[in-house]
Amino acid sequence: MNVVVRNTPRLPDAVLDGFAAFGVATVHEAQGRTGLVAPQLRPIYSGARIAGSAVTVSLAPCDNWMIHVAVEQCRAGDILVVAPTSASDAGYFGDLLACSLAARGVRGLVIDAGVRDVRDLTTMGFPVWSRFVHAQGTVKETLGSVNVPVVCGGALVSPGDVVIADDDGVCIVPRLRAAEVARACAAREDKESGVRARLKAGELGLDIYKMRERLAERGLRYIDAPLEH
Amino acid sequence: MNVVVRNTPRLPDAVLDGFAAFGVATVHEAQGRTGLVAPQLRPIYSGARIAGSAVTVSLAPCDNWMIHVAVEQCRAGDILVVAPTSASDAGYFGDLLACSLAARGVRGLVIDAGVRDVRDLTTMGFPVWSRFVHAQGTVKETLGSVNVPVVCGGALVSPGDVVIADDDGVCIVPRLRAAEVARACAAREDKESGVRARLKAGELGLDIYKMRERLAERGLRYIDAPLEH
Amino acid sequence: MNVVVRNTPRLPDAVLDGFAAFGVATVHEAQGRTGLVAPQLRPIYSGARIAGSAVTVSLAPCDNWMIHVAVEQCRAGDILVVAPTSASDAGYFGDLLACSLAARGVRGLVIDAGVRDVRDLTTMGFPVWSRFVHAQGTVKETLGSVNVPVVCGGALVSPGDVVIADDDGVCIVPRLRAAEVARACAAREDKESGVRARLKAGELGLDIYKMRERLAERGLRYIDAPLEH
Amino acid sequence: MNVVVRNTPRLPDAVLDGFAAFGVATVHEAQGRTGLVAPQLRPIYSGARIAGSAVTVSLAPCDNWMIHVAVEQCRAGDILVVAPTSASDAGYFGDLLACSLAARGVRGLVIDAGVRDVRDLTTMGFPVWSRFVHAQGTVKETLGSVNVPVVCGGALVSPGDVVIADDDGVCIVPRLRAAEVARACAAREDKESGVRARLKAGELGLDIYKMRERLAERGLRYIDAPLEH
Amino acid sequence: MNVVVRNTPRLPDAVLDGFAAFGVATVHEAQGRTGLVAPQLRPIYSGARIAGSAVTVSLAPCDNWMIHVAVEQCRAGDILVVAPTSASDAGYFGDLLACSLAARGVRGLVIDAGVRDVRDLTTMGFPVWSRFVHAQGTVKETLGSVNVPVVCGGALVSPGDVVIADDDGVCIVPRLRAAEVARACAAREDKESGVRARLKAGELGLDIYKMRERLAERGLRYIDAPLEH
Amino acid sequence: MNVVVRNTPRLPDAVLDGFAAFGVATVHEAQGRTGLVAPQLRPIYSGARIAGSAVTVSLAPCDNWMIHVAVEQCRAGDILVVAPTSASDAGYFGDLLACSLAARGVRGLVIDAGVRDVRDLTTMGFPVWSRFVHAQGTVKETLGSVNVPVVCGGALVSPGDVVIADDDGVCIVPRLRAAEVARACAAREDKESGVRARLKAGELGLDIYKMRERLAERGLRYIDAPLEH
Repeated sequence: MNVVVRNTPRLPDAVLDGFAAFGVATVHEAQGRTGLVAPQLRPIYSGARIAGSAVTVSLAPCDNWMIHVAVEQCRAGDILVVAPTSASDAGYFGDLLACSLAARGVRGLVIDAGVRDVRDLTTMGFPVWSRFVHAQGTVKETLGSVNVPVVCGGALVSPGDVVIADDDGVCIVPRLRAAEVARACAAREDKESGVRARLKAGELGLDIYKMRERLAERGLRYIDAPLEH
Repeated sequence: MNVVVRNTPRLPDAVLDGFAAFGVATVHEAQGRTGLVAPQLRPIYSGARIAGSAVTVSLAPCDNWMIHVAVEQCRAGDILVVAPTSASDAGYFGDLLACSLAARGVRGLVIDAGVRDVRDLTTMGFPVWSRFVHAQGTVKETLGSVNVPVVCGGALVSPGDVVIADDDGVCIVPRLRAAEVARACAAREDKESGVRARLKAGELGLDIYKMRERLAERGLRYIDAPLEH
Repeated sequence: MNVVVRNTPRLPDAVLDGFAAFGVATVHEAQGRTGLVAPQLRPIYSGARIAGSAVTVSLAPCDNWMIHVAVEQCRAGDILVVAPTSASDAGYFGDLLACSLAARGVRGLVIDAGVRDVRDLTTMGFPVWSRFVHAQGTVKETLGSVNVPVVCGGALVSPGDVVIADDDGVCIVPRLRAAEVARACAAREDKESGVRARLKAGELGLDIYKMRERLAERGLRYIDAPLEH
Repeated sequence: MNVVVRNTPRLPDAVLDGFAAFGVATVHEAQGRTGLVAPQLRPIYSGARIAGSAVTVSLAPCDNWMIHVAVEQCRAGDILVVAPTSASDAGYFGDLLACSLAARGVRGLVIDAGVRDVRDLTTMGFPVWSRFVHAQGTVKETLGSVNVPVVCGGALVSPGDVVIADDDGVCIVPRLRAAEVARACAAREDKESGVRARLKAGELGLDIYKMRERLAERGLRYIDAPLEH
Repeated sequence: MNVVVRNTPRLPDAVLDGFAAFGVATVHEAQGRTGLVAPQLRPIYSGARIAGSAVTVSLAPCDNWMIHVAVEQCRAGDILVVAPTSASDAGYFGDLLACSLAARGVRGLVIDAGVRDVRDLTTMGFPVWSRFVHAQGTVKETLGSVNVPVVCGGALVSPGDVVIADDDGVCIVPRLRAAEVARACAAREDKESGVRARLKAGELGLDIYKMRERLAERGLRYIDAPLEH
Repeated sequence: MNVVVRNTPRLPDAVLDGFAAFGVATVHEAQGRTGLVAPQLRPIYSGARIAGSAVTVSLAPCDNWMIHVAVEQCRAGDILVVAPTSASDAGYFGDLLACSLAARGVRGLVIDAGVRDVRDLTTMGFPVWSRFVHAQGTVKETLGSVNVPVVCGGALVSPGDVVIADDDGVCIVPRLRAAEVARACAAREDKESGVRARLKAGELGLDIYKMRERLAERGLRYIDAPLEH
């Protein structure tokens, strides 16, 4: 049965914006190394870093009808997450759909398939993470669903989950864990910024993290290279 | 039997230039969703958009001898299309060949294999769409053919066909269909620019394309997310 | 047995800098078409061209402990070369390790696995050639070795070997062959610059390289395209 | 937080056995073309067709500790479903673990990673669907979870779901939908066996499915090949 | 425009049967190393070796409607060759279509996509060469064409061309070249059977093919391994 | 400089035969999880398990000349290990070369590229581990070397190293470590056979390996699935 679920809950913008500042690598670590989308989904241009609430789309392979349906469910602060029910490299999304989403304040697209018009999307500043760039068109024949849980790039995404995306890829935070993960991100950043300063000053991680003893226990041996004649 | 076919017919520059303006996605749609080269062939740098007449090269794997032969057959407005007879990731093409082609007014290269010297090619502004970037050299031992039909990235290319290439990939238009396809491109662009304006103004594709009734017929159901406590 | 080999021999900076100027494609050709790392290892940003002395790291899959150990063995002019003992797409390296290496004058990283924090690495100007970009974290549980011979991207790398990396990929020159290869590079460049000038002036490679006779001997036939009516 | 969930609900053996008889292709169709695991997960030998209750394992990359933990949770009629939290081709499973599972009546293994000892597993008749065959060993250092929902080959699998696997791949049926899907399978098989008999007798699908009119409406044209002289 | 071309010319069965006896490797060599389909298309079971006349199908991705149309155009001695217009791993073909083709005397299927019901196809002895095995279903919504030239696995196939398929893959011989290629195959086999006997008797290819002199001219050096103490 | 090294040292047949009995997974573990060839190199037929002394061949891509040269250097008990200097899927090896090697007592072939005539090789019982099966022919134009160290499937192989190959893949043991590794294999097998018996009797690995305490220390929690109503 194909459904469109309306008025799914979202987190406030302030929460989402905090996640964008942390970035994918920090969020992934802070929530226990979970939530990453497959690294084959890459940004179509460098430098974008966004976070938003997931509006999810499950659609038939080579059929982008449900993306048109999903636009109406999107609000400012959302990120569209699209997953075909069978692997496909076709181009499901281009500049017209991006215009429509941008007009609604949508922050970007994550799609486990292909997109096209990437020059226009880049000029518009509409960021996309996709598995392929491909001009191959799609049809509008088969129903799918909007705002149901989907698997996108191997990650489970439910509507309203926080999507964070940057040059390192895409990470998903379950909506109900967001507050806890945000706290863990902040703690991690605090710690890292102290370490960063010491590393820049030339101190070694071996000393900062006190690794030398454990390495010796495990049996690591240091030897000098033989002299050459 | 290996042949070099000289003086293959080309279309006038004005026709080619029109295709460059339309771009790959529009041309592909306008000719009935055919002609796309495999999306694994990617540009070595972003932002180029070219169209030209195909000079085709069929060559032995890891042997670039026939590219040297093909240079002489190239004219201003051409695009070289190179396909090895067996899959290979070697680097068949670099800055010397690019200098030679550029000196003849060739607009770019499409190759179902690897290229090298990409920093020089980028500086020169000589655009290339290739499956690989690889410094691996090739030999000059085995004959191939120039200006025979080839399969490049899964697409059939005949000499004189129109090659359009941009950030979305590469599309081939058979020479004798060019006029008809150009007309279809123009019609498609007209239609799309009207739709684009309406989408930017916030109108929905669901309404513009009158999709609501057909979705309902197919049985799409809208439900509200359950309230949370 | 896991070891860290200290004080491995390096070549002088002047020799390394010469290789950076030649670039990967020239070096690869000059040493007899050997030494290339697999083309799937790509730079995280365009335009960097470096050469340095290899500090090698062999580590367990999904475990970056040995990179921390290797930092201490690095000096100005080095390039870190990292190879897991089993294929992996995890992110073994990020901005903290890059800060530490940069503080020691290390010129870059080549890794047959994934890296993260690529936006920070790009901002810092710390160049990396990797097979993946992936935020996936790693553990610090299993010993490996530093400055032992490793296979990275299919290429054998010994500590102190010259690593050259640019937009075309990565090439390895055995340390003891460096002088000989540098001479061959210079000779090749001399020859190429003369050819380049002639090609730019419109002369054909067919004539410069005297290929016409050999093509004829092999039986290449030139024919004219049939007239069309 | 890492957990082992005990005493997850299962369906009766009679239900599971019915699914094995239907096979993957029929079940996938009957539940609305959902539930397929990625086709890169292939059987290590041909001819096995099994169905069972999922015991799920989420584990760290290159670490098979949690499989040992999961064995204790398995009962006769179960199928173990294993998914690392990061892609990996290591060999997480071999003949010793298979002996242990077989001793408990487990019907097979589905793993989104590698296995080894395939000759022994084949001799034992213990069927496995895996993404890789690889002798590469794993460690036992990091906790994971047993009987939590996992994504395996892009499919969401919850403990107790029905797993069907044969030469066509692997399909997952949510436990609570099993009765409904089983009925749909039976209906589909009834219909297909009638069609099969007519097709064997030489009748055409075009007629059985009454496709000719719709093809004509869409504009399909039949023409004869030109005569050759 | 979508067409079905009827009554395309075929070669006599005796010619086809001769090609089956030669096998793919011999035919490929005998026609000048052309005509091979990409090696990613593999047989679903070992040991089949067939040749037949191509009936070609160009179809939309994830849509197998045109295979139903093509069945009617097939005769005894044919091989169906199917290519989607966009890459896809769905399962376009299963046991029902195989029953229908077998009832008409069709010898097998070559498809640049996925198939399913491979256990049934194996039991029936209906051989298939495909890029994927996948249970994923397809729709019947979009027209394509039958008996037009298609590109399948990178090879151009026209209706009536000879298709040869065995454990080494698939090779295409243009219909009008078949007589010439068959003669070249016979000549090649004659020569090879003489060489085979000499090799089995222990003679070396170096001597049979008189390679020693040319190797020496090129500068190959023979040295003995150093003695070990 | 291209060389053929003659009379490289080998280990006695009895040593080699011992390794065949242990198999790839055991040998890989026993030598500290090193030496595995990439899992993409697969056997052309199931069930073979061999060990032998490596005769190595480094050759140009798409050029099998050096295999002919290497045959003369092969003796009974050897395994040919072939690595092109650039990745290639061509078919470098077929039934004629296999006849020649079999006549000399060679036990099999490991090649990081393609082979053909797999039906004949299977009938002969000549086992091959290759990355591809492809009928694509190669030329005989460029020199390479025999019995120099090569990188094959990511593993370093020196002439005379022990090659073990079975359904799990291929493992390389350095010649000078063979005695030590053989002892470790025997010890490992002893231990495993005891464990195997206990597992078959229903004992759990959790108990045999005494894992429960360490799992608890790390914080693994056991909970019961909630009751369903």
